[in-house]
Amino acid sequence: MKIETLRWFNNRLEMIDQRILPAAFEYLSYYTAASVAEGIRSMVVRGAPAIGVAAAYGVALEALKLSQRAKGEGNDEKADFKQGMEAGFAVLAASRPTAVNLFWALQRMRKVWESVATQTQQQIAQHLLTEAHEILAEDVRINKAMGAHGAALLQDGARVLTHCNAGALATAGWGTALGVFRSAVESGKKISVIADETRPFLQGARLTAWEMVQENIPVTLITDNMAGHLMAQGEIDAVVVGTDRVAANGDVANKIGTYMVAVLAQRHNIPFYVACPLSTIDMTIATGKDIPIEERSTEEVKGFRDYHWAAAGVTIRNPAFDVTPAELVTGLITEKGVIHHPDAEQLRRLFA
Amino acid sequence: MKIETLRWFNNRLEMIDQRILPAAFEYLSYYTAASVAEGIRSMVVRGAPAIGVAAAYGVALEALKLSQRAKGEGNDEKADFKQGMEAGFAVLAASRPTAVNLFWALQRMRKVWESVATQTQQQIAQHLLTEAHEILAEDVRINKAMGAHGAALLQDGARVLTHCNAGALATAGWGTALGVFRSAVESGKKISVIADETRPFLQGARLTAWEMVQENIPVTLITDNMAGHLMAQGEIDAVVVGTDRVAANGDVANKIGTYMVAVLAQRHNIPFYVACPLSTIDMTIATGKDIPIEERSTEEVKGFRDYHWAAAGVTIRNPAFDVTPAELVTGLITEKGVIHHPDAEQLRRLFA
Repeated sequence: MKIETLRWFNNRLEMIDQRILPAAFEYLSYYTAASVAEGIRSMVVRGAPAIGVAAAYGVALEALKLSQRAKGEGNDEKADFKQGMEAGFAVLAASRPTAVNLFWALQRMRKVWESVATQTQQQIAQHLLTEAHEILAEDVRINKAMGAHGAALLQDGARVLTHCNAGALATAGWGTALGVFRSAVESGKKISVIADETRPFLQGARLTAWEMVQENIPVTLITDNMAGHLMAQGEIDAVVVGTDRVAANGDVANKIGTYMVAVLAQRHNIPFYVACPLSTIDMTIATGKDIPIEERSTEEVKGFRDYHWAAAGVTIRNPAFDVTPAELVTGLITEKGVIHHPDAEQLRRLFA
Repeated sequence: MKIETLRWFNNRLEMIDQRILPAAFEYLSYYTAASVAEGIRSMVVRGAPAIGVAAAYGVALEALKLSQRAKGEGNDEKADFKQGMEAGFAVLAASRPTAVNLFWALQRMRKVWESVATQTQQQIAQHLLTEAHEILAEDVRINKAMGAHGAALLQDGARVLTHCNAGALATAGWGTALGVFRSAVESGKKISVIADETRPFLQGARLTAWEMVQENIPVTLITDNMAGHLMAQGEIDAVVVGTDRVAANGDVANKIGTYMVAVLAQRHNIPFYVACPLSTIDMTIATGKDIPIEERSTEEVKGFRDYHWAAAGVTIRNPAFDVTPAELVTGLITEKGVIHHPDAEQLRRLFA
């Protein structure tokens, strides 16, 4: 099954509603930057690369909307368009703070806009839409390149732990960490996946498990607190996760709990790999300390969806990400190859 | 609020149904060893010390039942009683494998039985019931002694992480780890508690949070995968957990996820304490490797209660406990005092 997390259909963006997976499989439609931003904020779409693609389409949708409204509205047309576009960029930029791909995609869309700013609004909108399509297509190509590099790291028969969902559903397709698994299987290796359920949003239990079942890749679900025990029992050979932002020194921000897995992997001499498109590396941020960590609604921790089990009156914390220091990272798997034991010097060379 | 996890009422054992807390607070009644065993297995009652007390009452209930049936039933009375009692011991011993207090309590009840075996069945039953009452009363006394020793380890203002529920609900009252918190507060210290939610059964979110709210002790709930992040942020000063069995070398079996917390605590130089009545130390088991780890039903990991969210077709693991090696344990808090950096030599001396 080919999973199209986002697709352009009938002049609108459609996104799989990942909040209701795997119980239901539905697309929601988006026509404006504000609605896409809300889709990102509410986690209809999630995963750093997918958020980047969604934001790119959000910009294109806003341009299309403004260019249609603008027809024959007189002198302030140009100012209105510019103002509307800036508002669109702003609402998208405010949707989620941690994933850098969001800002990377917005920056890329802004450059296209600037490069065609003298053209008609309709032409600008078409250029932006073309760029969004290109970002989506590129994402799949990049994932497959990462997949090939990552698959080479896994031994035949490897039992590989992953946290959260860095799959087709977190990207435009194929996936980053799960893309590595898909590529390994495609190359003829037998691997099996251990999926952390990933509280509170349960991306592992709902999304990673679902993707792997669709692909017929053997997958075992555990609660987040079981990973250490399985490592101690010798049941994990490698870890591969995705990331939302990598700092210039190789520190990795990813879904809350990733840090715990990395510390445990180090203790048990298990390689810890991060599948990481170059767009996820933020050279403007020196170390992980400077990566903003989103705190989400306490409702998510009280239970799941509308089913609450937590005792009334308890205070709740809900940091959505944590930072794994570069020293715990065996390798960053990028589309240009694997960076072993990443550090500031290697990342500088990569972008030089 | 005084929490009576188990109570003897109207010639029956009553236990709080911990499966439905905190949404509902209800006692269930038990009349036989088999029903108590089922209550243990299905986690109406849980927590190593509480399981021990429940098992003791299970033996007494069986003796009462058999002694009542036996009246005037002829020659085989004595053999029937013995056979019935052995069946009661067996069903209780098979209820849960990891907590040693279960076997410790059964052994203690067996010794009483042997010491009064020549008396009438009614007399034997009364002796056994008296012993169960004594085990219950002792448990609270022991918890308060542990509480005093443990409270001395916590600084005023300490932010203390705990995993699972080692509270009044895991014992006959007061609690082991949460007993330390109660004693610290009683001694005038201001502390705050961070509670891991403890998937899959959610003892932290449901039971620990509820107990601390009842006591007006500030408590913050997190998902199990957030503990590392909070430690990295400098938000945890100490860890106190309970245990289901400690091996002769100081290795600690406790609720799944405890090992991950201990590894993280060591990395961050945070003291990791285990509240541990002497009845939980199993000198017949050399190291943690030999402690049987219960694998529970996969249903528990699919979701919570009847609400399932896991993708269909996924394989599931559900080890209920893990082993924390003694090297990660800063101290065992017992009723006789704190054993710092426990090892085989110190535990041998303790029981000498």
